[in-house]
Amino acid sequence: MRLGVLGPEGTFSEKAARRWSPKADLVYFGDFEDILRAVESGSLDLGMVPLENSLEGAVPLVMDVLLELDVKIAGEMSLPVRHCLMSQNPGEIKVIISHPQPLGQCRKFIKEHYPKAEVRATGSTSHAAKLAQEFPEMAAIAGADTAEKYGLRILARDIQDGIDNVTRFALVGKEIPEPTGRDKTSMVVYLDRDRPGALCQVLQEFSLRSINLTRVESRPSKRGLGDYYFYIDLEGHISDGHVQGALVGIKRNAAEVKVLGSYPRA
Amino acid sequence: MRLGVLGPEGTFSEKAARRWSPKADLVYFGDFEDILRAVESGSLDLGMVPLENSLEGAVPLVMDVLLELDVKIAGEMSLPVRHCLMSQNPGEIKVIISHPQPLGQCRKFIKEHYPKAEVRATGSTSHAAKLAQEFPEMAAIAGADTAEKYGLRILARDIQDGIDNVTRFALVGKEIPEPTGRDKTSMVVYLDRDRPGALCQVLQEFSLRSINLTRVESRPSKRGLGDYYFYIDLEGHISDGHVQGALVGIKRNAAEVKVLGSYPRA
Repeated sequence: MRLGVLGPEGTFSEKAARRWSPKADLVYFGDFEDILRAVESGSLDLGMVPLENSLEGAVPLVMDVLLELDVKIAGEMSLPVRHCLMSQNPGEIKVIISHPQPLGQCRKFIKEHYPKAEVRATGSTSHAAKLAQEFPEMAAIAGADTAEKYGLRILARDIQDGIDNVTRFALVGKEIPEPTGRDKTSMVVYLDRDRPGALCQVLQEFSLRSINLTRVESRPSKRGLGDYYFYIDLEGHISDGHVQGALVGIKRNAAEVKVLGSYPRA
Repeated sequence: MRLGVLGPEGTFSEKAARRWSPKADLVYFGDFEDILRAVESGSLDLGMVPLENSLEGAVPLVMDVLLELDVKIAGEMSLPVRHCLMSQNPGEIKVIISHPQPLGQCRKFIKEHYPKAEVRATGSTSHAAKLAQEFPEMAAIAGADTAEKYGLRILARDIQDGIDNVTRFALVGKEIPEPTGRDKTSMVVYLDRDRPGALCQVLQEFSLRSINLTRVESRPSKRGLGDYYFYIDLEGHISDGHVQGALVGIKRNAAEVKVLGSYPRA
């Protein structure tokens, strides 16, 4: 089974993938969009991509690409994320480098301890470690085992801005798995613009049926400022009667509805 | 009047500030958090910071800091944003550099035309232009007039991923301005976790009173995965009777409500 993850070796998406399936044949990609396109085209069986983080919030690129492509969320996994600062030597650090998400998760640490360092984003935590291996003036933010993999010295541990730093990953494939009785469903709803109460009517379809929403997030529709898609995660499988009922109700009020997937709750 | 903007000279927040007040005494800062802290401490009268963009969505750092600090949104301004790629010479471009927001707004262009370039984030579009002035292998993404300011050649124009690219800025101060009859209010609501229908009850307080919501956005509470603040923008001033009525209703259902400001609609 070919499972796509962010590369090179040592990323958190690789860790999530290994935890989900120790035996999968991992394929490394340069960014999350390429992973999802490879799933859509069938050159990958599955892909592991981050959806949101408890400190930094949604991963916008992944949300936008999930809406665009013909793929399905088939699983979710939450991974505790602890970041370290690492470099070749503890000398002067001119550049702090990582993926944009960890840079956001460690913003307070960087501002407090390295206010003069240039903060630079790159494709992944492990790519940042690889660069720190090459350039002594750079320090990377990545997981502790990535320091070991790239022969770097850990300068500081647990540098994320909160104790409870967890990233929620999605396992993405082409099919929606069968219900397990303890599932979640992700969908995207697009409403007619500027109609007071439209979002409320949509949410009521769920509350009427006592369906618990675990996440409501908006993303720009890219059709103009103030025009949004709403991403809704809820408890239940898309084949459940009450979820089906809510979906019928929503379709009466929404201009567009797309089910991103149903999957066992983590 | 001292008005804080992102620096160095040539950023879009500077353009928004100049449009708002051609005569203000502009003060340049390295990041948006420092602008907002200077407003809170009183060393600035006002600050101009981006809230959201029609392609790339919310600016998470600004949302988090607005919630944390004792400041008020006192105005809003929408600025059309057109990006150019610029460098010293049209030779090989190894690095494409800009602020993370423009990099997101031009993602498709970069992926299509410069798939092998290293994409690097820095503090502002104008800082990127300054670096491109220094390093010939770098191309910056910034506005056309920034190319002129830094003596760079424009390699491509209008490279954002959509025609309608607009950034909405907030003018932030210490006081809420008087109602004009055509205002907006921004607030943040924190709900008790995992109560089905809680968000719906909050939104109903608005729809019952025919108050139009112009934005509903969530941000992690940083208290754990799946726990969010909801940012709500609505039409009306906080001193309006029906907005006051909604606020009273919301306070019955929400654990925490913070009014971020009321201001004339752009």
